[in-house]
Amino acid sequence: MLITFEGIDGAGKSTQITKLIGWFERKGIETISLREPGGTDAAEKIRRILLDSSGEITPLGELLLFSASRAELVQQVIIPALESEKTVILDRFYDSTTAYQGYGRGLDLDMLRSIIQISTCGIVPDITVFLDLDPETALKRKFAEKSIPIAFDSDELDRMERSGLEFYRKVHQGYRETIRQNANRFVILDAKENADIIHLKIKEIIRQRFPFSAAIKQ
Amino acid sequence: MLITFEGIDGAGKSTQITKLIGWFERKGIETISLREPGGTDAAEKIRRILLDSSGEITPLGELLLFSASRAELVQQVIIPALESEKTVILDRFYDSTTAYQGYGRGLDLDMLRSIIQISTCGIVPDITVFLDLDPETALKRKFAEKSIPIAFDSDELDRMERSGLEFYRKVHQGYRETIRQNANRFVILDAKENADIIHLKIKEIIRQRFPFSAAIKQ
Repeated sequence: MLITFEGIDGAGKSTQITKLIGWFERKGIETISLREPGGTDAAEKIRRILLDSSGEITPLGELLLFSASRAELVQQVIIPALESEKTVILDRFYDSTTAYQGYGRGLDLDMLRSIIQISTCGIVPDITVFLDLDPETALKRKFAEKSIPIAFDSDELDRMERSGLEFYRKVHQGYRETIRQNANRFVILDAKENADIIHLKIKEIIRQRFPFSAAIKQ
Repeated sequence: MLITFEGIDGAGKSTQITKLIGWFERKGIETISLREPGGTDAAEKIRRILLDSSGEITPLGELLLFSASRAELVQQVIIPALESEKTVILDRFYDSTTAYQGYGRGLDLDMLRSIIQISTCGIVPDITVFLDLDPETALKRKFAEKSIPIAFDSDELDRMERSGLEFYRKVHQGYRETIRQNANRFVILDAKENADIIHLKIKEIIRQRFPFSAAIKQ
């Protein structure tokens, strides 16, 4: 099965993925956990271009580089893993492209959809766990991480902080739209709940979705 | 204006481009000559991935990397040059993608078309000069360049040589289809003619296509 995690930065995806991998390992379920861009030789090289050249690359060039990296990961790692009955967990997949580069950066959504269809070879996750966090809290967590004070009274926000909040709001709105259009695949969980409670809920959902998996039932 | 040169390897594109640049320079026409992949910082980095990793990258990943490089070149160099009234000459552009990766490698043509539309931002050449060379002669020239003997009697061809010829035939067929679908834009010249005669013909065609350009008339 293919399980993806989505949500704005600070929603706690890494924590939940670590817990889920631990659970699968204890169940003896072979699991591969990946994050984009990267995961193959060429994709790691692409990752370096994306990290080194931020600001010099146009949004469209960035999208195509991400997609090249995704095409490599899908064809060389994800599809072979799924074919050999392994479970694949992804920290972000194409829903992030829709939310961040489509709604966040304003790239054309129909164009995005066709690039996504091509670069994923049509692969669709079995479950996408969306850790829902309001943009204000996400930004607060981010600023707290960096020990930068922040106030949400708009007068006290500088241009960058306001643009950060605006951007997060657009991304959040993008996720909502995506969920509305793909309701069957998405599981929405409140990211403000305790991490162990969220983990329990994720386990319960996986049990429900895969009722015939002997390994999970054990 | 945007002039592109197409044709299978060995057709003499570089020779004709050099002659054309010389003519434009003597006329005082500001010209930029480019070849893909490359031409911007990020595109040069992408070029290195494509050159270093051949064989490890899937055809789809390769297509998306080429397209990322193309998107950068188009947005950062070609469009600004055309907007400031410069003439741009390209040694291969998206018709090569159609011929080599579509017909040659067998990637889906509708998929290619949508990726090309996206990565070029819809830019279409004013003239595409196709230097027509039959696959047998092209391969002969290529082998001669490397001082490798070749015979076209199929019994004497090894697997690689035969595959080379098969590949060139598909690419040549791809160019023919592309020309059929874009007849207005293409100029087809016999690549076996003398290089100076071909150059004269190219100049004549450019004069005809741009009858109001004072610089070319002089």
